[in-house]
Amino acid sequence: MESKIILALDLTDYQKSIYISKIISGEVYAIKIGYPLVLSHGIRIVKELSRYSKIICDFKLADIPNTNRIIAKLAKENGAMGIISHAFPGSDSLKAVIDEFKPGDIYAVVEMSHEGSLEYIQKHSMEMARMAIDLGVDGFIVPGTRPERIKLYREISGRIKLLAPGIGTQGGDPVEALRAGADYLIIGRSIYESDNPLLTVKKLNERINENL
Amino acid sequence: MESKIILALDLTDYQKSIYISKIISGEVYAIKIGYPLVLSHGIRIVKELSRYSKIICDFKLADIPNTNRIIAKLAKENGAMGIISHAFPGSDSLKAVIDEFKPGDIYAVVEMSHEGSLEYIQKHSMEMARMAIDLGVDGFIVPGTRPERIKLYREISGRIKLLAPGIGTQGGDPVEALRAGADYLIIGRSIYESDNPLLTVKKLNERINENL
Repeated sequence: MESKIILALDLTDYQKSIYISKIISGEVYAIKIGYPLVLSHGIRIVKELSRYSKIICDFKLADIPNTNRIIAKLAKENGAMGIISHAFPGSDSLKAVIDEFKPGDIYAVVEMSHEGSLEYIQKHSMEMARMAIDLGVDGFIVPGTRPERIKLYREISGRIKLLAPGIGTQGGDPVEALRAGADYLIIGRSIYESDNPLLTVKKLNERINENL
Repeated sequence: MESKIILALDLTDYQKSIYISKIISGEVYAIKIGYPLVLSHGIRIVKELSRYSKIICDFKLADIPNTNRIIAKLAKENGAMGIISHAFPGSDSLKAVIDEFKPGDIYAVVEMSHEGSLEYIQKHSMEMARMAIDLGVDGFIVPGTRPERIKLYREISGRIKLLAPGIGTQGGDPVEALRAGADYLIIGRSIYESDNPLLTVKKLNERINENL
């Protein structure tokens, strides 16, 4: 059975990133990397890590259409399988990412896990989710800590992939998030900071398979 | 008189970026660089360009507080003088950038120049501007194409620096934007794509000085 886990590789250390990717690649669906790692070592690290696993670039794109397009192009050229874009800067900005990055997977942020998300973003979550579906995104980033919100996004669309961060260290439970409708769990620190990352991810996969 | 111009170096080519920065540095207030350049060559290019000019990192930060903090730290460690952060992910995310990047300059995006900005961002512009002032940002990014909006931000706060992109190729007029209250004009293509970038920026400086 394909793993439901996406490893959030929130590191800046080059050697450790390569090492963790190598040993864990067979046990996860994909690896998600962000600006801290890519800024430290340049976008070419996406190409290197792609040798071990499918890579999702968590760039939370939030610029004007033309700049979003250039960033999406760089991710694509370097072999990224997926890209994460904000929906908040509007439909033209999101459309630029989709046009550039297809046939890769585009995941839209329609809600975030931190408190500040409630101030502005959350007021438009459902509206942004519908806009993003109409434009043809492949999935959403949804809060793994709030299963009731995951259910809501599941109801809006059956075909959309739901990726849930916030599992593990941040408090979300893997089985609960999956039962609420999440397709994949984004897990970082509780894997790569454990004494035995490979064993940790294997046990997580087992626990998930037994409980679904 | 100090130049009112910030050069938007929206290039990905390494040699050309260095060349333009070298010849133009004496004629601009600062140089603004973004993800296309930094992703292509790694964050260390900030350090290199800092030899010629003050550098503003246009990273439009839009992540959870902890990730914003890591990105701001990377910009600071590499010598950036200023950083541009979104306000829409909320006060905790913006505060993380401020806490990490001080005493450098933090500029908040409270409105953008593209159409999509009207869908969600613009509905909260004034609210976000007040929040950002309370937190202690140094300036805002305001639309150079809409002088009436610049006046509005000027009225909210006398001390805040207003940086206006959209001048030149995108249609904004430098003198009009400054008269409306902008402190600096962000100009890119009409300088670095001209036949003689140094002459172009000198003429712009002259025109500004004569008309203010």
